[in-house]
Amino acid sequence: MTSNNTLSEQKMPDLDADHTPVTVIGLGLMGQALAGAFLRGGHPTTVWNRTAAKAEDLVAQGAKLADSVGDAVAASPLVIVCVSDYDAAHDLLDPLGELLDGRVVVNLTSGTSRAARESAEWAGRRGATYLDGAIMAIPPAIGTADALILYSGPQSAFDLHAPALRSLGEGATYLGEDHGLSSLYDVAILSLMWNILNGFLQGAALLGAAGVSATTFAPLAKAGITTVADWVSGYAQQIDDGAYPALDATIDTHLASMEHLIHESEFLGVTAELPRFVKALTDRAVAAGHGGDSYAAMIEQFRKPSAEHS
Amino acid sequence: MTSNNTLSEQKMPDLDADHTPVTVIGLGLMGQALAGAFLRGGHPTTVWNRTAAKAEDLVAQGAKLADSVGDAVAASPLVIVCVSDYDAAHDLLDPLGELLDGRVVVNLTSGTSRAARESAEWAGRRGATYLDGAIMAIPPAIGTADALILYSGPQSAFDLHAPALRSLGEGATYLGEDHGLSSLYDVAILSLMWNILNGFLQGAALLGAAGVSATTFAPLAKAGITTVADWVSGYAQQIDDGAYPALDATIDTHLASMEHLIHESEFLGVTAELPRFVKALTDRAVAAGHGGDSYAAMIEQFRKPSAEHS
Repeated sequence: MTSNNTLSEQKMPDLDADHTPVTVIGLGLMGQALAGAFLRGGHPTTVWNRTAAKAEDLVAQGAKLADSVGDAVAASPLVIVCVSDYDAAHDLLDPLGELLDGRVVVNLTSGTSRAARESAEWAGRRGATYLDGAIMAIPPAIGTADALILYSGPQSAFDLHAPALRSLGEGATYLGEDHGLSSLYDVAILSLMWNILNGFLQGAALLGAAGVSATTFAPLAKAGITTVADWVSGYAQQIDDGAYPALDATIDTHLASMEHLIHESEFLGVTAELPRFVKALTDRAVAAGHGGDSYAAMIEQFRKPSAEHS
Repeated sequence: MTSNNTLSEQKMPDLDADHTPVTVIGLGLMGQALAGAFLRGGHPTTVWNRTAAKAEDLVAQGAKLADSVGDAVAASPLVIVCVSDYDAAHDLLDPLGELLDGRVVVNLTSGTSRAARESAEWAGRRGATYLDGAIMAIPPAIGTADALILYSGPQSAFDLHAPALRSLGEGATYLGEDHGLSSLYDVAILSLMWNILNGFLQGAALLGAAGVSATTFAPLAKAGITTVADWVSGYAQQIDDGAYPALDATIDTHLASMEHLIHESEFLGVTAELPRFVKALTDRAVAAGHGGDSYAAMIEQFRKPSAEHS
């Protein structure tokens, strides 16, 4: 299949900020969603995927399918990479030589902060400007107001392409110059999500054993989650201040309720593993003298290297 | 100090639903907040506390301080108990004999579901109707729209006194006839809250090690928490259905990100204990064949008795 781009078009991209030509490399579910959002945003969009068939819907919507990764990169000043991992991204782009020179490469592939920093160095050696990114949204949310996508790297590159990147989601958020920040925020927020879900599942299991359905529990669980969302900024301020006045409840009070939770779980025959884990962390905070402090004082247990406790 | 109530007033309480006389026994910070909210709601309010000095502010606001627990109970058809624990409540009320007969006792003391059921049986033997309750709010929130208070026990008693109970918070919620439900929901929601905070603290510790302040992380953490709040009803439906289609991400995908989190934590020198615990739970779900399912399938790990894994 041949790209509809002529060489002259490729060399004179439309640099109007709102209609910057973009290239999307990697057309899994997420890559397809990204390319679709660029098309809806009015960006001339070139795509490439190892299996060309995945581009069919996008071509029907107006995307140009490039013959090669090199043609795809050459087509646009802004190149989005969304493949399985950093090694795959490197293997695709490394053979392109000087084609990357002067382009902005945005890597939305999931990976570690170290891999992001190494990729930035590699891109710099090719004359490319590198932004690392993390998508905190599922493919159907891409292009909507709900899609939070985090970017890190040179602010000038983010600012230059912010209008195009906002086509992917109104929540385009610049974190800072350190290329590793996107990956770090990514796992920090995912970790938060897993813990919320685990907390919900523990409650659903416990109440389920008492005959309460998960859908009955859900509205009150949601109210509880929303309440805690409002506490976070206050706790964050205490963490930054290094002072943890118990304006709500003390860690000692929490500990007493944790014992109730363990007893209830054991009584109803559901696992008490997670409650015991949480209580063990909390016991340590009390042992460290934080029993009269707010829960924010628990931060000191999370900062400690694991080795101290193993 | 003498109660301002005359005996005749005590025997002819105002039974208008909106101005039912109430008694509050126990004037810790929470008990004081409860009595204050009843007073603001226009309820003739009698209070008692072992240390009478704690009633001074309330008396200045119009509360009647009873000379004894017996006088306090005799003053109102609706008696709220908010003391340190169930044993303390029992020790105060058990010697009162027939004084409890015909009254509705609402115990807002924290405790286990078993203690709540035992208290209901004890109250029944005294001719009292018993509601157990759990306050999911801090004292300053009592009486506001934000105050969620959960009640369980006979629905007729809740319905009779719902207008008075709403003086304590618009979020007065009736859970069901089983007296143990308030305590179970209490620990289920507290557990959810601890897990949310632990997830936030893990992220704050990780990002803190990379030079990001907790207050910088807080707005994105709040966005993440709010996002998950919207997922809960969908996951709850999957749990009740016993089918976990991965409409967002599979457990296998989550597991890969969990490995990133562990590596980032180790690399930055913060504890990886919680991430390792979460990953171990998830490994088990994969081993049980749920790698391609949504995170809701993890419920099966939470239902299992701990003994299976110890």
